[in-house]
Amino acid sequence: MRVAIDAERLLGSLDMLAQIGAIDGGGCCRLAFSDEDATGRRWLASRMRMLEMDVRIDAIGNVVGRYEGRDPSLAPVMMGSHVDTVRTGGRYDGNLGVLAGLEVVAALRDVGLRPLRAIEVGAFANEEGARFAPDMMGSLVYVGDLALDDAMQARDADGVRVADAGAASGCFGDAAVPGPRPHAFLELHIEQGPVLDREDFDLGVVEAVQGICWQRYTFHGTSNHAGTTPMAMRHDAGYVAMRVGALVRELPARYPGEMVATVGVLRLEPELVNVVPRRAEMTIDLRNVDRDALVAARDDLDAEIRRIDEAEGVRVERAPMAFFDPFRFDAAVVERVARHCAGTGRRVRRMVSGAGHDAQILGRVAPAGMIFVPSVAGLSHNVREHTEAEHLALGAQVLADVAVELAEEAA
Amino acid sequence: MRVAIDAERLLGSLDMLAQIGAIDGGGCCRLAFSDEDATGRRWLASRMRMLEMDVRIDAIGNVVGRYEGRDPSLAPVMMGSHVDTVRTGGRYDGNLGVLAGLEVVAALRDVGLRPLRAIEVGAFANEEGARFAPDMMGSLVYVGDLALDDAMQARDADGVRVADAGAASGCFGDAAVPGPRPHAFLELHIEQGPVLDREDFDLGVVEAVQGICWQRYTFHGTSNHAGTTPMAMRHDAGYVAMRVGALVRELPARYPGEMVATVGVLRLEPELVNVVPRRAEMTIDLRNVDRDALVAARDDLDAEIRRIDEAEGVRVERAPMAFFDPFRFDAAVVERVARHCAGTGRRVRRMVSGAGHDAQILGRVAPAGMIFVPSVAGLSHNVREHTEAEHLALGAQVLADVAVELAEEAA
Repeated sequence: MRVAIDAERLLGSLDMLAQIGAIDGGGCCRLAFSDEDATGRRWLASRMRMLEMDVRIDAIGNVVGRYEGRDPSLAPVMMGSHVDTVRTGGRYDGNLGVLAGLEVVAALRDVGLRPLRAIEVGAFANEEGARFAPDMMGSLVYVGDLALDDAMQARDADGVRVADAGAASGCFGDAAVPGPRPHAFLELHIEQGPVLDREDFDLGVVEAVQGICWQRYTFHGTSNHAGTTPMAMRHDAGYVAMRVGALVRELPARYPGEMVATVGVLRLEPELVNVVPRRAEMTIDLRNVDRDALVAARDDLDAEIRRIDEAEGVRVERAPMAFFDPFRFDAAVVERVARHCAGTGRRVRRMVSGAGHDAQILGRVAPAGMIFVPSVAGLSHNVREHTEAEHLALGAQVLADVAVELAEEAA
Repeated sequence: MRVAIDAERLLGSLDMLAQIGAIDGGGCCRLAFSDEDATGRRWLASRMRMLEMDVRIDAIGNVVGRYEGRDPSLAPVMMGSHVDTVRTGGRYDGNLGVLAGLEVVAALRDVGLRPLRAIEVGAFANEEGARFAPDMMGSLVYVGDLALDDAMQARDADGVRVADAGAASGCFGDAAVPGPRPHAFLELHIEQGPVLDREDFDLGVVEAVQGICWQRYTFHGTSNHAGTTPMAMRHDAGYVAMRVGALVRELPARYPGEMVATVGVLRLEPELVNVVPRRAEMTIDLRNVDRDALVAARDDLDAEIRRIDEAEGVRVERAPMAFFDPFRFDAAVVERVARHCAGTGRRVRRMVSGAGHDAQILGRVAPAGMIFVPSVAGLSHNVREHTEAEHLALGAQVLADVAVELAEEAA
């Protein structure tokens, strides 16, 4: 029996949640542990209860609704994502994965179906990390890879702790962490990039999440008069940084693994038209699904930087900012997602995610997979973030098909 | 008869003037039209009067002392420079040219010599432009290329006008501007660059001042997620700016004229580690003594920028900030300076100045020339600015020899 999701109901849910913390331009601001975030979570819990789900809220604020299965002793199939947003966020990032999960439960109820395993829908706390680091905080605590106490002590830019912000807004519950391992985990998410939209695909089968290497480089040269200092006598920190920056762009073509490389920050000092910069600070963001290639690119870049520095007489300092290993989703879940995507008859692309997601954290304790739907023009973390209604419904239907199939697995 | 300057007396004068507005590290802060600047000028005028010079102070604050010649009807030989400083200035920049001029007068008095023509020593107002634009304000008003009213209306960063700052500190006098044209103008100055020091020369014969072309480029791209946006789908404003910046460094080798090229300012937006920059703003400072090469370099660079922009899908805006033609000093004065430099038996280099000087402005109305002495390590606009005593004296002696010779010219 086919479980058919109701596109109108799903769109209605997305609209309702988008009213909470709504901002100009059609976006949302529900920063983690804020009053708006807490209001969104309360709305979500009440919606779960309307679907006769049991709701548990744990000590870091993860909200999990459970639609009981025929055999309550079996581990549940869990779907989910997050409902916190960045400061000028869109209405689909995260929200879609949670509300599509609820739509699967609603669709099961429409046809009076109760799968063998329970279906759970989770909204994990502070996935964005826009206010408190690290991002994916709720799912990390859920799987036991971040101690609750450490998460509680994290502070925002104003020095406010998670413990205090979450308590004040009423985000925390009493369910224990780490939480129980699901049988499998599924996350539907907007792509947040331009690939599906630009290449005219309808669905993405996510095979992996890219590894991330963030580094900060500080170049120390000599400040000099731009008029009186011949080119050969300069130690120009800005020039070295710019040459490295141009080089960063050429890196991805030299390595396997759909690599991307970005210089997002470059600051010169003293920042005067007629003074050779004495100091340049830059960040380099390298991402690759192939860990060896990621490390090789970083090390090769460092060797080239040393060569340029030496030629210019500039000294470099390198500070690692973050390193996350790539994550490969469970092969069996990926193939199951791919099969159901193919079954829709629509254009499907296999791809890697350049952004981090809760599914890669849940994937540490259970077989996990992700489905992507197109982001128009690749916009995300932007009030103009948009996904066509047709794609929202299509993604939710694939999510339903995969979840119900997994929920009938005895082992 | 040889007019021999007294090195001890010159060093003593430099020490005394350096006490006014002295700052930590041995430098000076006498910003144009400040109380410190006014105090320096009053000290200077009293020193001129001690040498029995007639002192006139004009409407923009230029201080000119006159040591009368045997024929008062002939135009004087003028020496000079400035005594205002940048905020963290050294004790030689400008000051040397003025105080060495006074030392020439003192040395003439030592031997009871009065040349055919009067000797004048000028301290021009606001050469630095560190507080009020334009720089070389006093000399521009002196030669009539800047209207007094326009100069008076110039405002500093706090909105204070030259008229008010100079009146409050007592900088202005009643001598008319433009001032009388001298027979010739000579300026002794520290190099403010590393060439003489690095190449072990004792004296520089300045043939020209480099032309200057300042431009501001703004690159408009598209902000995108650094993880989810494939390299081929980016319009990275920061990358374009960095590639242009690396290119700027390669420009000088392709053109004649001892060109220098500098990127001093580069700002990215939104300046986040994981966001492809949507906007980059950079300044390019090109200098060349060859005007055609300067213009060709600017135009060739623009053509290359358009090619890079097109390949990357980034739009560029170019705003001219300043353009000064190169200035060639009077050939006869340059050869006379070169002959006297050679006569010292020391190592002498012909060179161009990368910085602007009052002599290039006075050179618009009279034959002019400059003598450079080495700046240790090329430091200037820095409290650690230093020139060896031996070189200060050597430069002052050449200044004396050239000035006295010119002052004996009947026509």
